[in-house]
Amino acid sequence: MKILVMNCGSSSLKYQLIDMKDENVLAKGLVERIGIKGSILTHRVNGQKHIVEQPMEDHKVAVKLVLDALVDKEYGVIDDMSEISAVGHRVVHGGERYAKSVLIDEKVMKALKDCIPLAPLHNPPNIIGINACRQLMPDTPMVGVFDTAFHQTMPDYAYMYPLPYELYEKYKIRKYGFHGTSHRFVSIEAAKLMGKDIKELKIITCHLGNGASICAVDKGKSADTSMGFTPLAGLAMGTRCGDIDPAVIPFLMNATGLSINDIDVMMNKKSGVLGVSGVSSDFRDVESAANSGNKRAKLALDLYYHRVKSFIGAYAAVLNGVDAIVFTAGLGENSATSRAAVCGGLGYLGIKIDPEKNNIRGEALEISTSDSKVKVFVIPTNEELMIARDTKDIVKNLK
Amino acid sequence: MKILVMNCGSSSLKYQLIDMKDENVLAKGLVERIGIKGSILTHRVNGQKHIVEQPMEDHKVAVKLVLDALVDKEYGVIDDMSEISAVGHRVVHGGERYAKSVLIDEKVMKALKDCIPLAPLHNPPNIIGINACRQLMPDTPMVGVFDTAFHQTMPDYAYMYPLPYELYEKYKIRKYGFHGTSHRFVSIEAAKLMGKDIKELKIITCHLGNGASICAVDKGKSADTSMGFTPLAGLAMGTRCGDIDPAVIPFLMNATGLSINDIDVMMNKKSGVLGVSGVSSDFRDVESAANSGNKRAKLALDLYYHRVKSFIGAYAAVLNGVDAIVFTAGLGENSATSRAAVCGGLGYLGIKIDPEKNNIRGEALEISTSDSKVKVFVIPTNEELMIARDTKDIVKNLK
Repeated sequence: MKILVMNCGSSSLKYQLIDMKDENVLAKGLVERIGIKGSILTHRVNGQKHIVEQPMEDHKVAVKLVLDALVDKEYGVIDDMSEISAVGHRVVHGGERYAKSVLIDEKVMKALKDCIPLAPLHNPPNIIGINACRQLMPDTPMVGVFDTAFHQTMPDYAYMYPLPYELYEKYKIRKYGFHGTSHRFVSIEAAKLMGKDIKELKIITCHLGNGASICAVDKGKSADTSMGFTPLAGLAMGTRCGDIDPAVIPFLMNATGLSINDIDVMMNKKSGVLGVSGVSSDFRDVESAANSGNKRAKLALDLYYHRVKSFIGAYAAVLNGVDAIVFTAGLGENSATSRAAVCGGLGYLGIKIDPEKNNIRGEALEISTSDSKVKVFVIPTNEELMIARDTKDIVKNLK
Repeated sequence: MKILVMNCGSSSLKYQLIDMKDENVLAKGLVERIGIKGSILTHRVNGQKHIVEQPMEDHKVAVKLVLDALVDKEYGVIDDMSEISAVGHRVVHGGERYAKSVLIDEKVMKALKDCIPLAPLHNPPNIIGINACRQLMPDTPMVGVFDTAFHQTMPDYAYMYPLPYELYEKYKIRKYGFHGTSHRFVSIEAAKLMGKDIKELKIITCHLGNGASICAVDKGKSADTSMGFTPLAGLAMGTRCGDIDPAVIPFLMNATGLSINDIDVMMNKKSGVLGVSGVSSDFRDVESAANSGNKRAKLALDLYYHRVKSFIGAYAAVLNGVDAIVFTAGLGENSATSRAAVCGGLGYLGIKIDPEKNNIRGEALEISTSDSKVKVFVIPTNEELMIARDTKDIVKNLK
């Protein structure tokens, strides 16, 4: 069974065609600048790159070119579109409706539209992408896999905000959490590496990319997570502030005359590691500046580690203990320094990192010592594979 | 040495006269409705109450009546005002200037004024109270004891927000923390009860009143605390929301048309346990409603406990372990249910509560079992005594 995984942004489209027999990626690629001058498709097969440059007025044109690339005589990987058993779509927000991945039908499309107010930047392009695929592949089943779904198991006392209850009833303001597909994937992989049933485990997963979140995974279910109503909350990130005293906002508006939209942009785009360091949102730049003696760069890193460590501590309390900690995504997979800085102060949990083992990048490996009471892993995330697995599970039941 | 402790609000004034020989409270009282119709002074000596009802146009009149009450032939406790060696004033905000209590002079008065933008509701009445005392007792030394001072030892990575650095430089936006006098008092008392030097201890202090905050006390110094730039941040409280996804504010303004000031009031006055339960900001009412089956009341309590527990976990990570946890203030001192609910899920730290011992109210006692790895205490806070002790220490060096 071959499954096409799609992730549509407002002017971009990422895809992978995965053969589920061995979970092998047959081809993958990226379309950029959809609907903008300079549209370009980059298609990769066996390490080879094929570029298609031509105007793409909308996502339908882009999807058509992706399908053409997949069946291309020269650089295609299948003979016919009918070999694609199903398409799995990444969808950012499923609201409270979807706690699991779902076969897409008209009802689901309606629900995705209903969630637009909760994800005004993300759900519309997701919907456009799904519609384009449905038009071009009307007989192929489509599955929606939600960033929020994994966290729907959080108990009410973890997802409710201490705000007037009416705001939840009227506007659905609550914690949703994001990166759910990633947290789910790496927690499952951690259980496999431990050779244990995930239902016996307490795992804290740290998805540390440019966006970053931490999740308390109790017996395979999300019990709490650091992102909230939006992906702004929780940890400091590349450009996002994470949790701050909410009273800073009225103070700033009164002190500066900035509008709430200015402040919203500032909190999302000019804060985090970039805002504190003044250097960059890219950790490699900030680490390099800190190493050269830039004090604000060092502060940005220390602050970042402090917040990761605090959330790990908080979730150890939420779970009443922890069996494993997983680092994933850009920084989590590649920065030995960050992992060492975070775990360095967690000796009270019985955590010991092996500096040799920690000196890896992008491999799924245990980095704790053999006598560490808590296993610590680096596990490269693979949201596309998780989407493909979910899609396969749903589609195989159709037949 | 007798010390008068003063805590001035916008229309109120609390006082205690303490004999430092044995730290005995000679008299204490409360003036309410200063500058408002119905001004009233309630003066207490040896469990007896004396009421003075007369117009008090300003704090100076109120302070004069307090001094009169203290030397009153019938219900006074000293013969002459000159017996008051010094006055210790509670001041909410000392900004970054004051990491310790300080003898008040013109420079300090100027600094208190400079801090008004940071505490627009609290510093002005504090200043008015100090000025009233200085006019009436020109030869008596005055000491300022700041709610924020104890937390000035926080490292930069704990007090800085991941916002553009310029906001710290221009507006001094950072975490200050509050309840410092209380956190300091109960951590010192906990070390005494343990018979240990506080410099060897890691203590987490939970000040759980209508306002609530938690502090990580490392070797006697604040290493992190849950309140922030203002007392809105951190835990859920009686009517305050504590930490929420800051993006909720722009969402709400756009969705409802509410002004930022409306939302500020909502977050401070209509949220927290009151907002979630819809019942009350008083925990006794909410506990009673929850026991009668009110689901939102139960949710409000569960959410409250969840956040306290999460912060304890976070601060165990910040301190890399914990030797003692202290509960203080209204709820912390009086609600065995809350203490049990919070500590119930902390077995991973080796915490065991003795249900018998926990069944106390308002006494300084250990409530953990003898084999608990972490000592848990209930310690009634006494900010007035801490203020008096600081005042004594500063004044005795003058002589």
